[in-house]
Amino acid sequence: MLLGRFQPFHYGHTKVVDWAYDRYESIIILIGSPRESYTYENPFTGGERYLMIQNTLRDMGYPNFAIVPVPDIHRYGVYASHVADITPPFDVVLTNKDLIKLIFEKEGYMVESPPLFNLDTLSGTEVRHRIATNGDWQSLVPDTVASVIDDVDGVQRLHKLYEIKD
Amino acid sequence: MLLGRFQPFHYGHTKVVDWAYDRYESIIILIGSPRESYTYENPFTGGERYLMIQNTLRDMGYPNFAIVPVPDIHRYGVYASHVADITPPFDVVLTNKDLIKLIFEKEGYMVESPPLFNLDTLSGTEVRHRIATNGDWQSLVPDTVASVIDDVDGVQRLHKLYEIKD
Amino acid sequence: MLLGRFQPFHYGHTKVVDWAYDRYESIIILIGSPRESYTYENPFTGGERYLMIQNTLRDMGYPNFAIVPVPDIHRYGVYASHVADITPPFDVVLTNKDLIKLIFEKEGYMVESPPLFNLDTLSGTEVRHRIATNGDWQSLVPDTVASVIDDVDGVQRLHKLYEIKD
Amino acid sequence: MLLGRFQPFHYGHTKVVDWAYDRYESIIILIGSPRESYTYENPFTGGERYLMIQNTLRDMGYPNFAIVPVPDIHRYGVYASHVADITPPFDVVLTNKDLIKLIFEKEGYMVESPPLFNLDTLSGTEVRHRIATNGDWQSLVPDTVASVIDDVDGVQRLHKLYEIKD
Amino acid sequence: MLLGRFQPFHYGHTKVVDWAYDRYESIIILIGSPRESYTYENPFTGGERYLMIQNTLRDMGYPNFAIVPVPDIHRYGVYASHVADITPPFDVVLTNKDLIKLIFEKEGYMVESPPLFNLDTLSGTEVRHRIATNGDWQSLVPDTVASVIDDVDGVQRLHKLYEIKD
Amino acid sequence: MLLGRFQPFHYGHTKVVDWAYDRYESIIILIGSPRESYTYENPFTGGERYLMIQNTLRDMGYPNFAIVPVPDIHRYGVYASHVADITPPFDVVLTNKDLIKLIFEKEGYMVESPPLFNLDTLSGTEVRHRIATNGDWQSLVPDTVASVIDDVDGVQRLHKLYEIKD
Repeated sequence: MLLGRFQPFHYGHTKVVDWAYDRYESIIILIGSPRESYTYENPFTGGERYLMIQNTLRDMGYPNFAIVPVPDIHRYGVYASHVADITPPFDVVLTNKDLIKLIFEKEGYMVESPPLFNLDTLSGTEVRHRIATNGDWQSLVPDTVASVIDDVDGVQRLHKLYEIKD
Repeated sequence: MLLGRFQPFHYGHTKVVDWAYDRYESIIILIGSPRESYTYENPFTGGERYLMIQNTLRDMGYPNFAIVPVPDIHRYGVYASHVADITPPFDVVLTNKDLIKLIFEKEGYMVESPPLFNLDTLSGTEVRHRIATNGDWQSLVPDTVASVIDDVDGVQRLHKLYEIKD
Repeated sequence: MLLGRFQPFHYGHTKVVDWAYDRYESIIILIGSPRESYTYENPFTGGERYLMIQNTLRDMGYPNFAIVPVPDIHRYGVYASHVADITPPFDVVLTNKDLIKLIFEKEGYMVESPPLFNLDTLSGTEVRHRIATNGDWQSLVPDTVASVIDDVDGVQRLHKLYEIKD
Repeated sequence: MLLGRFQPFHYGHTKVVDWAYDRYESIIILIGSPRESYTYENPFTGGERYLMIQNTLRDMGYPNFAIVPVPDIHRYGVYASHVADITPPFDVVLTNKDLIKLIFEKEGYMVESPPLFNLDTLSGTEVRHRIATNGDWQSLVPDTVASVIDDVDGVQRLHKLYEIKD
Repeated sequence: MLLGRFQPFHYGHTKVVDWAYDRYESIIILIGSPRESYTYENPFTGGERYLMIQNTLRDMGYPNFAIVPVPDIHRYGVYASHVADITPPFDVVLTNKDLIKLIFEKEGYMVESPPLFNLDTLSGTEVRHRIATNGDWQSLVPDTVASVIDDVDGVQRLHKLYEIKD
Repeated sequence: MLLGRFQPFHYGHTKVVDWAYDRYESIIILIGSPRESYTYENPFTGGERYLMIQNTLRDMGYPNFAIVPVPDIHRYGVYASHVADITPPFDVVLTNKDLIKLIFEKEGYMVESPPLFNLDTLSGTEVRHRIATNGDWQSLVPDTVASVIDDVDGVQRLHKLYEIKD
């Protein structure tokens, strides 16, 4: 199980997916904050992010994955149970976030930390910044993600949200 | 796009899926009321139903599908927009429910009605009743669904919920 | 841990409390549906029920108890975790309700069933009916509960709610 | 009535409790934000804080108190009514927070300000900081609170949350 | 202050409005359950009902009125405070519903009961039934309400919802 | 349609209203965040703001307006549908906020930008600051708004909220 906001899904995420499939037969990808959209920090809707991930994993040739949007409940004490209720069962949580680690470990889940891949460029923050400022963002995301972003006028959306933010 | 509660996923649903793939290249299956569980009407969690559907469609050999749990919002006037926000884009809504038809048509979606397949035996109500009363339910659901139900002690759960209901 | 709606707290409940203190050193009483009030089925507010229970247990001489209102979340799959998050820790769940039993057992809690005490007269339904129809309800509840009901004009409230219901 | 988040309950709070029992026969302690936990500002669950307060007041020998978790509703205009609905009745609100004072006074409640006791050391902020940085926090909280914090691995939790925060 | 669901606004309501303006200078009309729509019991959206009421009161020549949608909160103990928070101030509550009377009187509001006008035909239930079954519904509602219903295809909507209900 | 928080309604808003009536026959004013109150940023309740706007538009002599409080839903992807559900129908959205523009344009609404009128003094921020610091705020708001503020002790409220903020 792999949890993220995926704003957007980029090559840092695909590297973690590759790393995970080296170890496990199937993975579950949870989309956090699926109802957040049209802000600079969370520009893409849950549906758009679902499509980015699904198309990319198909292109990568991985058949056994589940994608599940997980609405925020703003209660860390109950979050692990909330996740378990709406997703297929999972054995291992893959995360580098200490908070996620903490709240799943307290419920008895095994947690593993994938290695970090070039965090300075391969981060959602960097990708969003490049989209908003006409930088080279296409090299940071899979082609199918770039297609989704183009289809939903994502570049123009980021430009506007960048202005609003200031 | 195909919306249901899938309590549980049964051969009536697989027939609609076959029918849909005859017409369309990919389908999106929405799990309604994913947070309802442990009642006689809604015995299985959203996560359990996700697993039933995913395993079955893989066994059927269909590669292009998305499964999205759609939490209830109890506002029909906004429901179509809520769905569009959290699912990948879709062109056609497949439903036999007049209310679903009404609220998606008012937003401009095309709606089609799949044929009905043996509704007297192929219904969630009938499947749940047979599980709860030791009838032959296995013949109404795909093997992989029967496996999921067994794995989560679903038969015993239905027996208990059936008693509570009375 | 003992869970109920306590509309109102009556001698059936005090008997269970006595039975529980024979076995355990301290108990936690959870008030279910604390935000429901001013209906015939749920006439008293969460605060009024808290007061009934607290005053009665003090009169009974039991020092070690906690009373915790537990708001409804309408998700049985997550309910046990929700309870654990907002109450002090507990080891045993005391309940005769099969559903409560089911959803706490699935999380690994020990569940015990207290004996049933005169359910035909010692039930919230019967007490409410007697209050609403000028029957002898005072003999079914502790004096301190009767005082709380009088202080909040509970008899008049039940009379009105009984009329509304019809 | 005394309202706080009690993250954690410390000697500043016990001094206010002593001060209050000098003036009133019984007090109601409201736990604010009971669903917040596992953040650096709100490390302890509502249930853990309930236990801290209950154990401490018993040790202090005060019999007449009620502890009520009050979920956030994020509507100050309705907050006083929300509190009144789920707690036993109260006559006086004890607070030093001007906002709480304002919103209860507008509903006609009497509000009194307890004296402030060494706010620079006796504050939740200071206690949390000392726990997180291996300072002497034990001298700022009652023994029974220290026990609860130890039992739930609170020191380790604060260490982790402190790192996450940075 | 006058509270109703107004599904739809009909001549029974206009008679109460006339009666109210004989006694008071201005009125506030609260639309209850504004988010309910597309069900047989609540066919019209909050926005559609707002328009019906506004257009009718203008046609009736009454200038001093406010219309406020009041979302359900499902807590009668807090409902009066919820209403007071989102509406302009009011002195008198006009209602024939005992429950509304009860929950506003407990907060100190004056409540008056308008006379009942031909409840057997002038009721929302009757109007909806006539629309759904091609009866003479036009004589039960103001012309401007009939116009709104026509503009939103309300007759066809009621027909469909009537079928779904069966 | 014109959307704002109106904390409070001031001459900047009345200028936009005049500008709008030059172009359109009727306007709908949406009160955003109607449940926010008693904070320095949002001092007035939804009901108080409704009254300010209603009284002012009557004084200005505009008969055809609707005022609708629109509760926050914190989902920009669904916000336009949420608004459409609870307000009378509208053709044009008048706004200078890029985000509002973006989320209504994506649903196909026409959006126009009214001219900006002296934003440095005619802003809610400036009006609140002057009220809180005994500046000349009366010249920035219509007399009827000043009356409402006086009636609800708004000056004293702002003074207190200003202190709390610091």
